[in-house]
Amino acid sequence: MSDLLVNSEKGHISASARIPAIARPFVSERAARTLDLVEKFVEEECIPADAVYHKQIGKTTEERFSSHPSIIEDLKKKARDLGLWNMFLPKAHFSEGAGFSNLEYGLMAEYLGKSRTASEATNCAAPDTGNMEVLAKYGTEAQKRRWLDPLLNGKIRSAFLMTEPQVASSDATNIEMTITRDGDSYVLNGQKWWSSGAGDPRCEIYIVLGKTAPNHTDKYRQQSVVLVPHNTPGITIHRMLSVFGYDDAPHGHGHLTFSNVRVPASNMVLGEGRGFEIIQGRLGPGRIHHAMRSIGAAEKALEWMLARLNDPAKKPFGEMLHKHGIMLERVAKSRIEIDAARLAVCNAAITIDESSAKGALKEIAEVKVLVPDIMLTIVDRAIQAYGGGGVSQDTPLASMYAQGRTMRIVDGPDEVHILQLGKNENKRGKAHKRRIEAQIAKGKRLCEEYGVGSKDILQLDRKSGEASKL
Amino acid sequence: MSDLLVNSEKGHISASARIPAIARPFVSERAARTLDLVEKFVEEECIPADAVYHKQIGKTTEERFSSHPSIIEDLKKKARDLGLWNMFLPKAHFSEGAGFSNLEYGLMAEYLGKSRTASEATNCAAPDTGNMEVLAKYGTEAQKRRWLDPLLNGKIRSAFLMTEPQVASSDATNIEMTITRDGDSYVLNGQKWWSSGAGDPRCEIYIVLGKTAPNHTDKYRQQSVVLVPHNTPGITIHRMLSVFGYDDAPHGHGHLTFSNVRVPASNMVLGEGRGFEIIQGRLGPGRIHHAMRSIGAAEKALEWMLARLNDPAKKPFGEMLHKHGIMLERVAKSRIEIDAARLAVCNAAITIDESSAKGALKEIAEVKVLVPDIMLTIVDRAIQAYGGGGVSQDTPLASMYAQGRTMRIVDGPDEVHILQLGKNENKRGKAHKRRIEAQIAKGKRLCEEYGVGSKDILQLDRKSGEASKL
Amino acid sequence: MSDLLVNSEKGHISASARIPAIARPFVSERAARTLDLVEKFVEEECIPADAVYHKQIGKTTEERFSSHPSIIEDLKKKARDLGLWNMFLPKAHFSEGAGFSNLEYGLMAEYLGKSRTASEATNCAAPDTGNMEVLAKYGTEAQKRRWLDPLLNGKIRSAFLMTEPQVASSDATNIEMTITRDGDSYVLNGQKWWSSGAGDPRCEIYIVLGKTAPNHTDKYRQQSVVLVPHNTPGITIHRMLSVFGYDDAPHGHGHLTFSNVRVPASNMVLGEGRGFEIIQGRLGPGRIHHAMRSIGAAEKALEWMLARLNDPAKKPFGEMLHKHGIMLERVAKSRIEIDAARLAVCNAAITIDESSAKGALKEIAEVKVLVPDIMLTIVDRAIQAYGGGGVSQDTPLASMYAQGRTMRIVDGPDEVHILQLGKNENKRGKAHKRRIEAQIAKGKRLCEEYGVGSKDILQLDRKSGEASKL
Amino acid sequence: MSDLLVNSEKGHISASARIPAIARPFVSERAARTLDLVEKFVEEECIPADAVYHKQIGKTTEERFSSHPSIIEDLKKKARDLGLWNMFLPKAHFSEGAGFSNLEYGLMAEYLGKSRTASEATNCAAPDTGNMEVLAKYGTEAQKRRWLDPLLNGKIRSAFLMTEPQVASSDATNIEMTITRDGDSYVLNGQKWWSSGAGDPRCEIYIVLGKTAPNHTDKYRQQSVVLVPHNTPGITIHRMLSVFGYDDAPHGHGHLTFSNVRVPASNMVLGEGRGFEIIQGRLGPGRIHHAMRSIGAAEKALEWMLARLNDPAKKPFGEMLHKHGIMLERVAKSRIEIDAARLAVCNAAITIDESSAKGALKEIAEVKVLVPDIMLTIVDRAIQAYGGGGVSQDTPLASMYAQGRTMRIVDGPDEVHILQLGKNENKRGKAHKRRIEAQIAKGKRLCEEYGVGSKDILQLDRKSGEASKL
Repeated sequence: MSDLLVNSEKGHISASARIPAIARPFVSERAARTLDLVEKFVEEECIPADAVYHKQIGKTTEERFSSHPSIIEDLKKKARDLGLWNMFLPKAHFSEGAGFSNLEYGLMAEYLGKSRTASEATNCAAPDTGNMEVLAKYGTEAQKRRWLDPLLNGKIRSAFLMTEPQVASSDATNIEMTITRDGDSYVLNGQKWWSSGAGDPRCEIYIVLGKTAPNHTDKYRQQSVVLVPHNTPGITIHRMLSVFGYDDAPHGHGHLTFSNVRVPASNMVLGEGRGFEIIQGRLGPGRIHHAMRSIGAAEKALEWMLARLNDPAKKPFGEMLHKHGIMLERVAKSRIEIDAARLAVCNAAITIDESSAKGALKEIAEVKVLVPDIMLTIVDRAIQAYGGGGVSQDTPLASMYAQGRTMRIVDGPDEVHILQLGKNENKRGKAHKRRIEAQIAKGKRLCEEYGVGSKDILQLDRKSGEASKL
Repeated sequence: MSDLLVNSEKGHISASARIPAIARPFVSERAARTLDLVEKFVEEECIPADAVYHKQIGKTTEERFSSHPSIIEDLKKKARDLGLWNMFLPKAHFSEGAGFSNLEYGLMAEYLGKSRTASEATNCAAPDTGNMEVLAKYGTEAQKRRWLDPLLNGKIRSAFLMTEPQVASSDATNIEMTITRDGDSYVLNGQKWWSSGAGDPRCEIYIVLGKTAPNHTDKYRQQSVVLVPHNTPGITIHRMLSVFGYDDAPHGHGHLTFSNVRVPASNMVLGEGRGFEIIQGRLGPGRIHHAMRSIGAAEKALEWMLARLNDPAKKPFGEMLHKHGIMLERVAKSRIEIDAARLAVCNAAITIDESSAKGALKEIAEVKVLVPDIMLTIVDRAIQAYGGGGVSQDTPLASMYAQGRTMRIVDGPDEVHILQLGKNENKRGKAHKRRIEAQIAKGKRLCEEYGVGSKDILQLDRKSGEASKL
Repeated sequence: MSDLLVNSEKGHISASARIPAIARPFVSERAARTLDLVEKFVEEECIPADAVYHKQIGKTTEERFSSHPSIIEDLKKKARDLGLWNMFLPKAHFSEGAGFSNLEYGLMAEYLGKSRTASEATNCAAPDTGNMEVLAKYGTEAQKRRWLDPLLNGKIRSAFLMTEPQVASSDATNIEMTITRDGDSYVLNGQKWWSSGAGDPRCEIYIVLGKTAPNHTDKYRQQSVVLVPHNTPGITIHRMLSVFGYDDAPHGHGHLTFSNVRVPASNMVLGEGRGFEIIQGRLGPGRIHHAMRSIGAAEKALEWMLARLNDPAKKPFGEMLHKHGIMLERVAKSRIEIDAARLAVCNAAITIDESSAKGALKEIAEVKVLVPDIMLTIVDRAIQAYGGGGVSQDTPLASMYAQGRTMRIVDGPDEVHILQLGKNENKRGKAHKRRIEAQIAKGKRLCEEYGVGSKDILQLDRKSGEASKL
Repeated sequence: MSDLLVNSEKGHISASARIPAIARPFVSERAARTLDLVEKFVEEECIPADAVYHKQIGKTTEERFSSHPSIIEDLKKKARDLGLWNMFLPKAHFSEGAGFSNLEYGLMAEYLGKSRTASEATNCAAPDTGNMEVLAKYGTEAQKRRWLDPLLNGKIRSAFLMTEPQVASSDATNIEMTITRDGDSYVLNGQKWWSSGAGDPRCEIYIVLGKTAPNHTDKYRQQSVVLVPHNTPGITIHRMLSVFGYDDAPHGHGHLTFSNVRVPASNMVLGEGRGFEIIQGRLGPGRIHHAMRSIGAAEKALEWMLARLNDPAKKPFGEMLHKHGIMLERVAKSRIEIDAARLAVCNAAITIDESSAKGALKEIAEVKVLVPDIMLTIVDRAIQAYGGGGVSQDTPLASMYAQGRTMRIVDGPDEVHILQLGKNENKRGKAHKRRIEAQIAKGKRLCEEYGVGSKDILQLDRKSGEASKL
């Protein structure tokens, strides 16, 4: 691998040397070395390859979803040779991966987020990552051999089918897809959309969330997850959804119907009624991956913005852009926001590493909301610095914006997480009220004690109904 | 110390248990125990005492600045008995303090920031903290005995005189106060304002920045720092400045003139021309202290807001406030913002601990800008939740807002730090540009290699002057 | 009146010439001339007098609320001589005023909002204005002679007592003050706070909202308004509330209790159960006045900011502030925001003029929310430009901020208006849904007609329950 | 035309009845009637036709830019029959149009902005509108007959070629395209991009800005405008630029080179060196059109959002979306922002009508910055309410966002207008400073006069250099 691009930066500080001081104790020597390798691979191999990738996709919709760019296979070979493969599988739970913690992989994911091809090249692309975790954690041996092995080897791809168009499916209790036991089979009926990855011709397996017991009194036991081969009769891919104007081919976001789709009963994962449990565990690390890739995208946008600020041909009002305080302010704010957001993601990753995704619910929800917001703000600033170039195909910015915009929606829209966070926070509300009232009461007693009077100190919770009493 | 207030919270999680996972490796067992003690002391002793403190200050301006509340001395005694004294002096550099790192003290400072009296009660109040650091680090033995000892013992107070009304003095090269050698003395002439603490009758020493060599070719060698006893002839305190409507008595923010103020030459600190160096070292940790106290204030505002949301008498549109999504959204955003900001401050503190204030310039500047902005937003939300009570003396919110608002100004306004951060970030601009251009060039070569054509891939930096060439 | 200040501005464009083009058809020649006179009076007489006003208020709380600055009487004489008196009373409804429309007075109120003394000097100060409207519109002849006449003559002042500390009283149905008929009297019991103006020794009459029929099935018929002379036995003023640190003496914001306060039955306004109707009518124009004064305050803040940008002594990074793009951006945004907000207020005023306060509910609510937000943003920018001076008594900015901050709370907090606006807007929601669905359906028909296929055009409202149908 | 869609809304208030009160005096009876007709035409004909329009465009890039949807011609016929044709040409200057003022057309343009096809259907689409204005105002009779007549008749389309990729061409003094006189011809060399409309096969004429005198000492006399038929030898359309993922076919945004492109000297418009003057006049009304269409788009987004809030299938946390305060808040804020922005555009249109585009520079710049910002915020809120549907082809929202995003860039990026506005505003800075200083000085004199002392009142502009004087 040529040293050209990264090392040619005079005074370039390596990725491992840029790890925030507070995160360093959590990063092993091996992870630090791998991190530097990831940076090099992304900057020198993947980003240049992105141009080829886009051009290798066809022109008509049919073409675009019927093959995949050959360059990705060349990159995968390079990555594997470098040992950059399956870094996402956390060492605490899995022996199949590269042996890194969620934090260590998170730091690498930041760099993967700077390129369209890097995640797939290192077999760390969604939704395969989450799907592999599900199979590794909950799959039977047979399921693992049949689906996990080729996924770990990058031979096939997969999709996770949860979202449905006709309901608020970010709340899994609303899911309408039915999974009905019929002899040795399960029969699936329903529709799914935003089935990301379903467009890829290599996508051979769908991990499908549906309801086996729609009337179960415990509404978190109604759901199950089954494995459905992509070519099972009864499945129709109606169309691909676009994101802003992008079709994200060959990956794609499918809109599918299942009409009496029959799979063997052995394709059930973990057991009937365990679906909610499975998706809960699946979402935590995935959100960290998304968040860290978004941090990387934000860094990339900032780098492009800085590049523009140093373009000698762009001199509005007679001064290069980096002489304009307006632009420097945006650069500085972007730096502040990225650095704070990265720490939040690192802390969430460490919290998962030290307890579990469930023990890190608050931290994960926080970054789920915080990071896309910051990333979009920064990408938007970079777009504005480029003017017409910023919204066009000449920069990666507009497509990064579109990608980032979906992050505020997927895995539950911001508002769901915000309201949940607010409700959880409010659980401490009464205790705060009691403590503050006790502090005020003690303050009044002290005022009397010190002889300074207390009648104008009011209790927080004024008694209603005793109208003329203060 | 009564256990009443903190422990009465069912399920209360102690301060040490709430340290973010990412920061835990940096906190010793002793610091964790002290942190819990600080929380208890602040919540159970200081906050109730705040009510007395305010009432013990007099009514007229003259009264307000001629004595100080007696309860503060009672608190100091309690704090010292608990071992909560001088926690701010970082163990890496000083033996006089309580033996904590900047991070460890930072975590404690968060709790101190919840009370008007807590910082002073533990001898950790600005500007004494920074002044003690200056004396401990740069003072002669004689200076230490005369001024540092009583400061460390909480016997006297001090002020730091840097800001001047007639110039943009956040840039020390603009300072106009003159310090002229005359025999065995220095003679000072000039004016200062925002001399915080100068109103307190216990304030006995001014640490004054002025120019000994206003024409020195190195503009960072023009400044010197001298020690000026408060009662030296020639000093006039003209008035106290208010912050919004608050006079911050007895501390106060003085506007003073120096007219031929003469001090012995031995009052020079470190030597002529070393003033810039002294203030640079002084500001770093102080900004961390301010920032962590602001985090504490933001937490307190959020607690008050949550208390209001659970007031059964407040039911707009027939529902308690915590049922209103608008309010829960603000609570959730506040939680997200506080948690991210705290991590940023912790990381800055650790960066100081592991290198120095100079090595943490970026991290310190980031929190200097980030934290007050977030704190003000959160306090403002809490004010709004309380309505009329929020802007009045019935809650601590309005005065916290005023206090927080000055944080965007003191030690240099936001804009100075933002522009400096932007300029520093821009230093990497050309390297980014070169790398991106190299990546585009390599992308073009790859496109040719893969036979997909490259003529519509444009170099970032289009050549001007070759008008009709693409 | 000297021409010095306003006319000395070279190229000064008069207030009437600055009326937005869209508003001009609504302004009479006489109003335009009066507007110019108001500008001159405010800039040349009132603003300089503000300095004296503040100094004439005493030092202790007792002093501050026991007299009022004499300069205000001198200003009132000047204003009356100039014909600038009672401009607020809209000509459409009252013959007692100066004969202007709500729009015309609104334009004048903008200038009054630039000075602490101008509104009172022209007898256009709240809460007297709203109180005079109530008396003029609903009062008996006896009530008018006893209270309206001296108010119109600026001989006494008044307060409006609505807000109560123990309930969410912005919703009048929550009011707890009782008004009980007892023979020829009404007896009042309860407490009020934010009784603005109650601190002024000249305040002789309270207009009090309470409940005569707390159990009335129509909850908008429970309330009544009675006139209560300030010195009626049973009234206690407990304390004055502060706004940030300001006590707003001598006006003040009182916290009062009423204990068996007895007034003649003839002091009832309009009749029992008419209270809600009265306050509804009272609030509309008052909100316009507040809003236009806030626009004036925002303009003043911008003027101060521009003055600072042209201070040759302030040169951070070696350039005067007006050379810094960051500052120019804030100036430009402030200009854009003020100009848009002013148009919104003008439109609301015209809507009142052309229909009534009731017919302008939406427009009034919009400016109630929009204007304070914009005003606070602009004042905050100006504060930041001044640094320490901005938060202190050396500029009018900090007190303007405090004043503006209460505007987001008084007459109902923002959130109440926002939710009400949202609910009203949502009334059209189903109609929008039907129309959009009809448009989609027609689009599908057209697609078939034009032979381009329609199966991928989805109806907005997907049928739930037909899972496998698209 | 069927009455179905609009009239079926129970209680539908017609467009003319919704004109803000403040704008009504400026709208003739005929314009009001036409406005209602425009609303009906857009809602009932154009919006349903949009679906066909998108489907009639081809699949490959080549197809997409080689024909145009036939439905547009059907719509044009309908529009013309209804008298909805060329409404944009302001009556004050042109007899060729429909006889409306800029304000009157502005109100209509709001409705045109709700549909992809409506502007073109009524021959009011950019860039033809601006181009027709240029030809009508500055063209020779021969130029008018050759190009204006078919444009007015909707027979051909046109493009305006100003922007260049290699320079900051929003400042026309940076333009590099050369126009060289050579005998009876002009010869053009250079490149242009964002040549909007150049993709349409009906686009027959380019109005091109270039430099005839690049070294002219008056840099606003260097530019000229010439008419270049689209099929002149030497012109190459290299590619179409995308906006986010949209190619905006068949209209398109072209990237072209001119290599020795020769046109007759008679194709010069107005004369050599008059180019700057021409584009100045062209941009004013066009910005109003864009702004009002954006207001319409914002209204449409809000309508879609409200439709979603009333979708019974979407019940997060068990409540329909319109029960969620978070959503109502966004609705209310959107309503407030749209209403204020509309007034700003109306005022700018009236200012043009009453003076000229030059006399309305400030008002036009204000809406150029204000409106896209508000529009994007509102569209983004609507996207969020729809989740996945919001970013996809199932709603018009994502493409509206992309369209709106370019509005912050075209005709000069926001920052250029903001800095220009800031600089203009700053011209009054010194006058403000003088007046404020005079007010302070007079205040001091008054303080002395009233015997209250003045020494603590500081002049704004403190004298530097007199260090010890207050």
